[in-house]
Amino acid sequence: MDVYEKSLQKHYEWAGKLETTLRAPIETLEDLALCYTPGVSRACTVIAEDKSKVFELTRRHNTVAVITDGTAVLGLGDIGPEAAMPVMEGKCALFKAFADIDATPVCLATKDTDEIVNTVAKISKSYGGINLEDISAPRCFEVERRLKELCDIPIFHDDQHGTAIVAGAALINALRVVGKRMQDVRVIINGAGSAGIAIAKFFLDMGVGDVVCVGRYGVITEDQNYPNPAHNEIAKLTNKSKLKGSLTDALRGSDVFLGVSVPKIVSRDMIRVMAKNPIVFPLANPVPEITREEALSGGAAVVGTGASNQPNQINNVLIFPGIFRGALDARASDINDEMKRAAAHALASLVTEKELCADYIIPNPLDKRVVPAVSAAVIEAAKKSGVARK
Amino acid sequence: MDVYEKSLQKHYEWAGKLETTLRAPIETLEDLALCYTPGVSRACTVIAEDKSKVFELTRRHNTVAVITDGTAVLGLGDIGPEAAMPVMEGKCALFKAFADIDATPVCLATKDTDEIVNTVAKISKSYGGINLEDISAPRCFEVERRLKELCDIPIFHDDQHGTAIVAGAALINALRVVGKRMQDVRVIINGAGSAGIAIAKFFLDMGVGDVVCVGRYGVITEDQNYPNPAHNEIAKLTNKSKLKGSLTDALRGSDVFLGVSVPKIVSRDMIRVMAKNPIVFPLANPVPEITREEALSGGAAVVGTGASNQPNQINNVLIFPGIFRGALDARASDINDEMKRAAAHALASLVTEKELCADYIIPNPLDKRVVPAVSAAVIEAAKKSGVARK
Repeated sequence: MDVYEKSLQKHYEWAGKLETTLRAPIETLEDLALCYTPGVSRACTVIAEDKSKVFELTRRHNTVAVITDGTAVLGLGDIGPEAAMPVMEGKCALFKAFADIDATPVCLATKDTDEIVNTVAKISKSYGGINLEDISAPRCFEVERRLKELCDIPIFHDDQHGTAIVAGAALINALRVVGKRMQDVRVIINGAGSAGIAIAKFFLDMGVGDVVCVGRYGVITEDQNYPNPAHNEIAKLTNKSKLKGSLTDALRGSDVFLGVSVPKIVSRDMIRVMAKNPIVFPLANPVPEITREEALSGGAAVVGTGASNQPNQINNVLIFPGIFRGALDARASDINDEMKRAAAHALASLVTEKELCADYIIPNPLDKRVVPAVSAAVIEAAKKSGVARK
Repeated sequence: MDVYEKSLQKHYEWAGKLETTLRAPIETLEDLALCYTPGVSRACTVIAEDKSKVFELTRRHNTVAVITDGTAVLGLGDIGPEAAMPVMEGKCALFKAFADIDATPVCLATKDTDEIVNTVAKISKSYGGINLEDISAPRCFEVERRLKELCDIPIFHDDQHGTAIVAGAALINALRVVGKRMQDVRVIINGAGSAGIAIAKFFLDMGVGDVVCVGRYGVITEDQNYPNPAHNEIAKLTNKSKLKGSLTDALRGSDVFLGVSVPKIVSRDMIRVMAKNPIVFPLANPVPEITREEALSGGAAVVGTGASNQPNQINNVLIFPGIFRGALDARASDINDEMKRAAAHALASLVTEKELCADYIIPNPLDKRVVPAVSAAVIEAAKKSGVARK
């Protein structure tokens, strides 16, 4: 039985991966009077006088809503709110297992940008943070931007920023391995969806010398007009090198390849034409743009993939638990660029100079040091950048 | 320290009355692959092919959202979404403690009827049922009616129907005590808010001979025109006796008084003019319309109040856990009138002929027999009335 059938069987056995449990005992009439009426009214009046007290007197300080519209679920595409639920429940389970965060899944019965924004804004005061998940591009950009304006809690689209931060940490350490400096390298990102665009922005924010995005029709250049506004925007920020043409053209002489696209579109020969000691992160899952073995045989110096059975797994679970743990603990109003950069550097720094090598640039997803390290760095960055409220 | 201050202290200690726990283990890389990617995608595709499978493969079958707009919280009125949270969390805790239901609080940042309806409808596919709570009248009627049309899961405004069903069970047994028949009695309901109107409708549905509602300006009569459409509607259904005037006028010769209004507005003398062996349910909380002692000294044969330290506590916790347990287990698309009547009769029938007396017409809120009895009756009624899907 393969992992898919075994998982299905387990899902029938679990009948749900999450459960609610009580922190307040309810066994006696006095318990009832303290937990509920009439005693509870005192907590209400305290919050009515000072709304911030809701973070002390209720569970809000430790909650994240994992929200999707079911349009870009795993590699399955637009499967709707019901079919998206196993993934959202799983994500909530990871929040609890890795960061002791009480997350709750919300699958929306709409794909309309305005309706998504309005619905999420209206329920946002029930949570300490919102993790947007598996919302397709380009709607995800507008949804996130508008919600950040409307809400006073962190809004974080993990498919964009979680992926970008983990990839950023991997890049920091891969560059240490090959002895290149951030500002000197050119990164080619293949796949201009939500993850690709977020990675491009984040890499530039981290100080990468040049980033070039490659979409379905080749290198994204400023002199073209794209139907997706996000592509026009990213065209302005990227491709200082003024590259043109295909992915193959772009790879010639470049230092880093990062794929968030489709299986098997990169060949060994395409790696061979890259700069010396190329770094290759083919992240398409479960089948990557090029296998680790082929990339290495093409001359790649460092390879990271999404696969758990290979070295250097670039997995979002390395970031979203710690970044939300830190944001919640700082009672941050936002997860901003400073906090994202701090998270990437904290994750990268867990690999010591002694341990660092081509096959170990990033901690294992189960490494218990990750969440404390990331969250501590995120709290500090939240305080320094003025978004911490605690 | 009184119950309010002690409750506040406990709320600071608890820092939230609910917690999420894992039903699926996440300790190894294999666990991750089964609970989340890549294995989880199989559960998604099964649900994409048959949406009803979401009730087997995720926690939806056991979940209820407790949703408020914070406009009619306890006796505190419109205190907003943040301040309402302790009550909603408490309600969720009761759902777990009494019926093992995984409930989640949602406090809405809007008081607009359309926005409430749209928001709840859009998130409804994440839950097995929706418990509306503390939404002020008359908006609560429209919100519930429209959500019942839009959603394929039970929508239940507990302030209306929970109260009505418990009061109905209390009435069934109080009538047994005084030896009167349902169809022969006249019930005076003081307070024409959401609870009062729902109780009036439910009592008529149970076969009460006549129900007379009394609002702020006296007896509600069909020949008047009220600004609240719910009052015009209830005027058509009630007051067969064509009573007019004040609450005192209405009580003369009537068999039952039920108050869901304000403290201390009924005197001993007003009880004295009622029919022989009057039944008195002054439910205003924490201070009732008339104290139990005064009602008894005025000649009341049976008294039930909202207080936990007196006999015959008419408490919603006797109904909402069992009615949702039954609705979820039947995978009902609705909680309809048949299910509500069945719940009332099941609750009443737990008091045996031998036990029944003026001081014991309704089980204690902590009676462990209540949820199994109510839920079994609700499941049967759901099946008979064609709303069960399992």
